[in-house]
Amino acid sequence: MKKPSFKNVAVIGTGVIGRCWIQVFARAGCRVRVFDANPESLAAGMTWFKNDLKDLRQRGQIKKKEAKARWERVTAAESLADALEGAQYVQESLPESQEIKNRAFHEIDALLDPKAIVGSSTSAMDMTLLAHGVPGARRFITAHPVNPPHLIPVVEVLKGAETDPKVEAKTIKFLKEIGQSPVVMHRFVTGFILNRMQAALVREAVDLVASGVADVEAVDTSIRDGLGLRWAFMGPFGVANTNADQGARQYFTRYGKAYEEMWDALNTKTRFNPELIEQIGQATDRMTGASYEKQRQWRDRMISAIRAVKAADPLLRDPPKRRRKPPKAASRKKK
Amino acid sequence: MKKPSFKNVAVIGTGVIGRCWIQVFARAGCRVRVFDANPESLAAGMTWFKNDLKDLRQRGQIKKKEAKARWERVTAAESLADALEGAQYVQESLPESQEIKNRAFHEIDALLDPKAIVGSSTSAMDMTLLAHGVPGARRFITAHPVNPPHLIPVVEVLKGAETDPKVEAKTIKFLKEIGQSPVVMHRFVTGFILNRMQAALVREAVDLVASGVADVEAVDTSIRDGLGLRWAFMGPFGVANTNADQGARQYFTRYGKAYEEMWDALNTKTRFNPELIEQIGQATDRMTGASYEKQRQWRDRMISAIRAVKAADPLLRDPPKRRRKPPKAASRKKK
Repeated sequence: MKKPSFKNVAVIGTGVIGRCWIQVFARAGCRVRVFDANPESLAAGMTWFKNDLKDLRQRGQIKKKEAKARWERVTAAESLADALEGAQYVQESLPESQEIKNRAFHEIDALLDPKAIVGSSTSAMDMTLLAHGVPGARRFITAHPVNPPHLIPVVEVLKGAETDPKVEAKTIKFLKEIGQSPVVMHRFVTGFILNRMQAALVREAVDLVASGVADVEAVDTSIRDGLGLRWAFMGPFGVANTNADQGARQYFTRYGKAYEEMWDALNTKTRFNPELIEQIGQATDRMTGASYEKQRQWRDRMISAIRAVKAADPLLRDPPKRRRKPPKAASRKKK
Repeated sequence: MKKPSFKNVAVIGTGVIGRCWIQVFARAGCRVRVFDANPESLAAGMTWFKNDLKDLRQRGQIKKKEAKARWERVTAAESLADALEGAQYVQESLPESQEIKNRAFHEIDALLDPKAIVGSSTSAMDMTLLAHGVPGARRFITAHPVNPPHLIPVVEVLKGAETDPKVEAKTIKFLKEIGQSPVVMHRFVTGFILNRMQAALVREAVDLVASGVADVEAVDTSIRDGLGLRWAFMGPFGVANTNADQGARQYFTRYGKAYEEMWDALNTKTRFNPELIEQIGQATDRMTGASYEKQRQWRDRMISAIRAVKAADPLLRDPPKRRRKPPKAASRKKK
């Protein structure tokens, strides 16, 4: 991991998402000051971090020395001002309320070094509105992680209307340095990228069950023993690129019409109702006898193991001379 | 792997899908007779199988003795009648044409032992039409694999109007015995389960690019470093079950409305056009400098490695007494 360009970081808000950011930053070697206006939540966040370090040690993923070093990089701050003191990057993970976040942004902006950047963990709100009226709106940017952010690297990055493009560039650079995988949005849409794609898949999954085509277990199996085996290391475009001898162009030229016909056949009127949710609940009960807690521990182990598999065998690049189509600067331009 | 209930198997059609079935059956210990009316295609299928065995040996996944045993279980047949001689299960992977398949089904039906079953690799067609007028229509069933079937275990199973339910049960049992992961459909829908779910995701992926929200690489990254890390071992319902403290019921009760709002925000009018396909092509060129062939080899290695990770750490079931909701026979009933 590269040495991060921001050494001093503040984590504001220590709920389910905020607390995981402590681990992300501490792991990357940053000094982290943590604050939550609710002292119980702050204490719970620090306890979660302590326990996560313990788990990592017990599973042999880090040594005692490393756990100690990470723990010593992190401080529970006594106030917002204390947390922001010297911070070069702030990760805000407060409740999803425009009012709460906007008020906090005013406070943070007033206390924070003028050169520092603030990333928001908001999963759905528009930075243009969140930073509205904040004098330093130019240094506020959406940096939405996936739960849990210390295990799943994607972070959705999106400027508000007033965000400085340099702030975007620095945020992307920093996120990469600390081992996250930033994806850039060019404009706001409901649900951002990730939740939209999840919603599209969930709609079809729910519809297949609701319309009696397949049981919950069959739908899940078709992902986890089928499509999902590729999606763990290739997105839909990467899959297309390997599904025809001559890559994605050939694939979509050949199957574009079949896709469009299928799109027209998908039901977009699907809705939840209590009976449907109960049907899903009974099926997920049957799918595993393990407790929810054990399922989550298994999930976290599996994600770590799959990331290790990916890291151990990255797709080797051919030497540049063998590239069929060298990257063209012009083609990178947005339309 | 359990000893399969059908020892003698015929593979009819040795295109990209059919040839992989040879490996699936030979690996499971079946005797396999292979036939393709085109001698070149038959020879190419056998060559593919030979090379795949060689690759498995070179990667240390099987020993020389095992490769030899698999090779000796497989025979290229001289005629359709020769291939079907003694077969208890037939996997048909002919071109996706109702006329071709229906004619072949008549021929197979006339030559085949009356107790034998025929599974069709059709990816899109309705068995009711494919087996129309075939005297033994009761023993024909859709068994649609995912490409490549020797690496990705899911097989979609769907009866035609005349298919005997016992044929369905025997096919499911056999597919499980040979290491595949059958998913049962209760009725025909365009694209079956798997391609519908892929289409739903691809539509949103394409729309995000076409509408300028995100670049191809960002969309792919949000799957492979985000959602896809979970989908390799959990379907969307399994994910929901771990995304709320009290499981899927709580998750969908809490977020059902948010999903519905997102569903309404998804564009369902997306269409391909040559410029869009070229934009995707240029981006997939940039995403990796490796040749298509190297990308496919990497894909196959990754799938194998991820399946090994899953097999090494299956979700442990709590002892039955700790199950919160024991499975109820009544709740399994279809509505």
